[in-house]
Amino acid sequence: MLNYGAPLDLMFQALADPTRRAMVERLAKGPASVSELKAPFVMSLPAVMQHLALLETSGLVVTQKSGRVRTCRINPAALTEAERWIEGRRLEWERRLDRLGDYLQTLNEGENDEQGQ
Amino acid sequence: MLNYGAPLDLMFQALADPTRRAMVERLAKGPASVSELKAPFVMSLPAVMQHLALLETSGLVVTQKSGRVRTCRINPAALTEAERWIEGRRLEWERRLDRLGDYLQTLNEGENDEQGQ
Repeated sequence: MLNYGAPLDLMFQALADPTRRAMVERLAKGPASVSELKAPFVMSLPAVMQHLALLETSGLVVTQKSGRVRTCRINPAALTEAERWIEGRRLEWERRLDRLGDYLQTLNEGENDEQGQ
Repeated sequence: MLNYGAPLDLMFQALADPTRRAMVERLAKGPASVSELKAPFVMSLPAVMQHLALLETSGLVVTQKSGRVRTCRINPAALTEAERWIEGRRLEWERRLDRLGDYLQTLNEGENDEQGQ
């Protein structure tokens, strides 16, 4: 069993909240200031900052302060990492089904050969 | 903004724990009884059942009881749904970068045209 460390824990935890997913969705369209990120939500600034902090800790979002404006950007490498973990499990399952299918076909062909003789 | 409901919340929450990810990993290799699923963990049966219940509620795992044995299987459709959400955001970001690249190239070509005249 592979040892998956904290990063995946934090990434999936960050994505488990609809507000944080909406923030990631907004940032997938391009960088945004904290005010722009806050705009669609009926939510206090501290609440927004708390969600943003969790997104930043998880690595999914990076922020940079220039003067009084903090700009938020998505971190595509972190998204890819979370995506790959799920994809890996799905592919493993699909490969297993393919092998089962091949095996069943071999059995079937063997049966047909016997009937043909 | 799209409305993402509880399923994604529960799926990502289920994946935010290393024990539950290890269980999904085990089930990606093929169905398993609860005892088989429990085997690699130094953990009480109730603790295993609690993780399994969360995986089942999230839709990532389905279980079926036959006599005294409960068999657990992965639900690839749920894995695909979680994967697609992340992939969608990543692709949106990459398309944006492509458009930016095209725009910069247009600017660059315009500049070269001017220099050529």
